[in-house]
Amino acid sequence: VVDGGALWQDLMHTAQFGGTPKGGICRLALSDDDARVRTWFAQTCAALGCDVTFDSMGNQFARRAGEDNTLPPIMIGSHLDTQPTGGKFDGILGVLGGIAVLRALHTAGITTRHPIEIVNWTNEEGARFTPPMLASGVFGGVFTEAFARGRSDRAGIILGDALEKIGFSGTEVCGQHPAAAYFELHIEQGPVLEAEERTIGVVQGVQGMRWYTVCVKGQDAHAGTTPMTMRSDALWAAARMIEGVHQVAVDHAPDGLGTVGIIDCLPASSNVVPGEVRFTVDLRHPDDDVLEAMEQEFRQRMEDQATVCGVEMEITPTWVSAAVHFDPLCVGCVRESAQALGYSMRDIVSGAGHDAVYVAKVAPTAMIFVPCWKGISHNEAESAEPDDATAGANVLLHAVLAADTR
Amino acid sequence: VVDGGALWQDLMHTAQFGGTPKGGICRLALSDDDARVRTWFAQTCAALGCDVTFDSMGNQFARRAGEDNTLPPIMIGSHLDTQPTGGKFDGILGVLGGIAVLRALHTAGITTRHPIEIVNWTNEEGARFTPPMLASGVFGGVFTEAFARGRSDRAGIILGDALEKIGFSGTEVCGQHPAAAYFELHIEQGPVLEAEERTIGVVQGVQGMRWYTVCVKGQDAHAGTTPMTMRSDALWAAARMIEGVHQVAVDHAPDGLGTVGIIDCLPASSNVVPGEVRFTVDLRHPDDDVLEAMEQEFRQRMEDQATVCGVEMEITPTWVSAAVHFDPLCVGCVRESAQALGYSMRDIVSGAGHDAVYVAKVAPTAMIFVPCWKGISHNEAESAEPDDATAGANVLLHAVLAADTR
Ligand SMILES: NC(=O)NCCC(=O)O
Ligand SMILES: NC(=O)NCCC(=O)O
Repeated sequence: VVDGGALWQDLMHTAQFGGTPKGGICRLALSDDDARVRTWFAQTCAALGCDVTFDSMGNQFARRAGEDNTLPPIMIGSHLDTQPTGGKFDGILGVLGGIAVLRALHTAGITTRHPIEIVNWTNEEGARFTPPMLASGVFGGVFTEAFARGRSDRAGIILGDALEKIGFSGTEVCGQHPAAAYFELHIEQGPVLEAEERTIGVVQGVQGMRWYTVCVKGQDAHAGTTPMTMRSDALWAAARMIEGVHQVAVDHAPDGLGTVGIIDCLPASSNVVPGEVRFTVDLRHPDDDVLEAMEQEFRQRMEDQATVCGVEMEITPTWVSAAVHFDPLCVGCVRESAQALGYSMRDIVSGAGHDAVYVAKVAPTAMIFVPCWKGISHNEAESAEPDDATAGANVLLHAVLAADTR
Repeated sequence: VVDGGALWQDLMHTAQFGGTPKGGICRLALSDDDARVRTWFAQTCAALGCDVTFDSMGNQFARRAGEDNTLPPIMIGSHLDTQPTGGKFDGILGVLGGIAVLRALHTAGITTRHPIEIVNWTNEEGARFTPPMLASGVFGGVFTEAFARGRSDRAGIILGDALEKIGFSGTEVCGQHPAAAYFELHIEQGPVLEAEERTIGVVQGVQGMRWYTVCVKGQDAHAGTTPMTMRSDALWAAARMIEGVHQVAVDHAPDGLGTVGIIDCLPASSNVVPGEVRFTVDLRHPDDDVLEAMEQEFRQRMEDQATVCGVEMEITPTWVSAAVHFDPLCVGCVRESAQALGYSMRDIVSGAGHDAVYVAKVAPTAMIFVPCWKGISHNEAESAEPDDATAGANVLLHAVLAADTR
């Protein structure tokens, strides 16, 4: 089994890179704090006998040799970047859990048949550069490297330049790196495991998700002299549209989700009726057909409100990730390991996207969930129990060993 | 009469200071472009024989001596700052119209009994530093100098520091400057004069206006894993509140106005349910009692939506300007001058706030409106006819001469 104390210490230690006063982490992809945690990752894995490299997307690979190094590696991974008001576990547990596995193998003097690689994927959150899971997406062949390296953040900084700046733009072309299997440990980020008092979620797959940007154009006008009937108010229209996004989700209860996370309004003066508003939309559902119906309803509602409010409106799709079903053999490795270790468990579908979604395109993949406090995530208050973190890492260790013997 | 050609040339010349590609002006108060137009103002008035000074709020005074310089001056003024997407006339016509009056007096060799002063008031728009009419408010005794100089813009820059930086922080204490009368020429910024084909609006007063900031607090949460029923979504709540502000205005049609001009949302990530939103509210009505009723309804609607959406909400009033009735004698000077010059006219109430609102607290005051294209203002497309600008400056000249003989 893994050393749960060392795992917890790593979690608390790395939380200082970008740590916030409220106990969360603000470690946007390719920021200086991200560079610091990357260096820590490389040094820690090297000390455990790994070769540490990174590819053209900045993905880091820590490789522990196996008996047969001509075999593709079994990969364990997740991400070390966070949301602007993120927590200490989202993504991080999956990478540090991988290090816990390395440490357990090291201590027990085990050499696996396959090499083992721990991966830290670049820009999973999609908070700095959209879309999320960008670098694992290049690895999985879903995005081209040129597209991904050309993404810009809201300040106009290009991903490729940000990678060069922190020194993590590697020469190995991203994606030319086969894997025998991929396992990702993650907090659930939802309330189910905690509510049902189960320790392990055996993840069957990931729901479908679609992102859009809506641009609303009205006319700048004086707030004191323009009669209500003569306005073309982009923000009033956007407000009614946001209510519409909410309704789309409610109309597809209980599984449908709809979120507006970013809104920008111009010219942003208290006494000017806004002439232009942009906002993001995130729609999700476990069933791709229902998600398609949600998109149709969403488009109709936006058009209806544009007409009611007398504004122009344009919807740009920015990301589509279809529902994913993980590899039955890998899922079996997770289930059997949890069973053998005596943990309570249940099957579960992920509401959040994960690097595993895209790695699943090129390698047999599965995920392990552990509970988190009240299901809260993407929040500085995100929290998990040390025992659950240890349990997750133990299942990860045994799932990898099971896959190694196939 | 004034030289309309020279007036128009001044309007087009000064429009280059902060001129935008779309033909508008972005000349925020105390910006470098504001400094440039201030220097132009000082030089132009000095060339017409004026003494040019500025006070501790950066208000500029160009003084033309009269026969009896122990008398307080008759003031003509408005502002040279603009909205971020402002036009070439809002405020500017009132200052440059004053210069046109100076030029007419100069050419005709007239010496008035009172000294004449042309004033450029600092930060009228309220776009960079809230509230609007800040420096004329100090002049009128409505705000203290300490309050006004301590206001900060959205980047955190303090007004006093911005004044020092551009070199317009004077030693004369703002407000210690009596006036015999005050006249302000302005575009209507509304549709009435154009629609009725009248050249001159004889302004009776200004409607009441109140500003608020609404702060909504929910909880950051993951957009993919948090069920709709478990969210505390600050932006969804704000959207419903913005619809509520609109309804308050509609419930007090046709004169009630309600505008949300600025919205800020945190943490601003596509896949995070927003935990905090702030927005501004601008409510207006010509009748203070109705405006009070609008405020009550507004407060109730905000509370109702906070309850519906499960968020916390706080309203902070940021500005109150009661309805104003101008001085009957000064209004009479405007009406009689327009009549004598043969212009079509009508009485009108201003929907926008003006420096005249606060100067009226300490001096007999009136305003003159001229039509603007489609009533559009606070917009780069703001436009006015040369003949109307000339007509307004002519009425200004004759109103000043009429007041001078009283
Ligand atoms: N795990 C996680 O929070 N990923 C971000 C992508 C998403 O929005 O689901
Ligand atoms: N004239 C003008 O646009 N003033 C700004 C103050 C207001 O919002 O009415």
